Amino acid sequence: MRKYTGDSLEEVLRFTRGLIPVVAQGRDGRVLMMAYMNRRALALSLSTGFMHYWSRSRRKIWVKGEVSGHRQRILETRVNCEMNSLLFIVDQTGGCCHKGYSTCFYRVMSGKGLKVVEEKVFKPNVVYGRKSTHTQEKFINR
Amino acid sequence: MRKYTGDSLEEVLRFTRGLIPVVAQGRDGRVLMMAYMNRRALALSLSTGFMHYWSRSRRKIWVKGEVSGHRQRILETRVNCEMNSLLFIVDQTGGCCHKGYSTCFYRVMSGKGLKVVEEKVFKPNVVYGRKSTHTQEKFINR
Repeated sequence: MRKYTGDSLEEVLRFTRGLIPVVAQGRDGRVLMMAYMNRRALALSLSTGFMHYWSRSRRKIWVKGEVSGHRQRILETRVNCEMNSLLFIVDQTGGCCHKGYSTCFYRVMSGKGLKVVEEKVFKPNVVYGRKSTHTQEKFINR
Repeated sequence: MRKYTGDSLEEVLRFTRGLIPVVAQGRDGRVLMMAYMNRRALALSLSTGFMHYWSRSRRKIWVKGEVSGHRQRILETRVNCEMNSLLFIVDQTGGCCHKGYSTCFYRVMSGKGLKVVEEKVFKPNVVYGRKSTHTQEKFINR
């Protein structure tokens, strides 16, 4: 493993097929989402201070909140021992999840099923527009 | 996206190349690590109650703590909106990171460098054996 000696972070991180997995955690400790960045999305995140991800389905970079306005301002960037994943502590505007919840992890396994354990913090139809909800879901689908 | 209708969780989750990314979070809210599971590692995790991962470098399943004894007992299993990542709340014995820290995310980006912001909670040489530290690092390398 290469030591980090002050080169830019992008150069010493270990990407797999051009991507690195990242976790976004709210300042209250809530894990909001996990997704991927490529080198360019990471560079944009670090230079602008707002989270940018690589969409594997759309094969393009997106800034979190580009449609909803629910951006993630970066407060802290952490690197794991193996230099192959990142943890960002963020200040989340609105709610993280396009389904209206503050976190994408709003369901818990319970017996044989899944149970919603979070309250909605916004109405997706209002934020994304009533007609476009399905499109938005596909659009945001990582 | 398929609805979860009470089939086993493994059947409705979306794996990419046979793997799903998972985040382990301590009961104190600390994000401990992120890694991958294949279907078998997930099934073993759910049936035993202890975290099992797929090692991409060794191409085999490992139970967290198989060498160190620092196991992760599962308290809660959460699924994201897209059914393509998992969040586990765990009770972590000892420390999560093979470098001796409670979390693998023990370094923060600070200016052009990385700064260690966590205290060690165990001595890797004692836990893994003095001679084998390097081997252990490779061994545990995901």
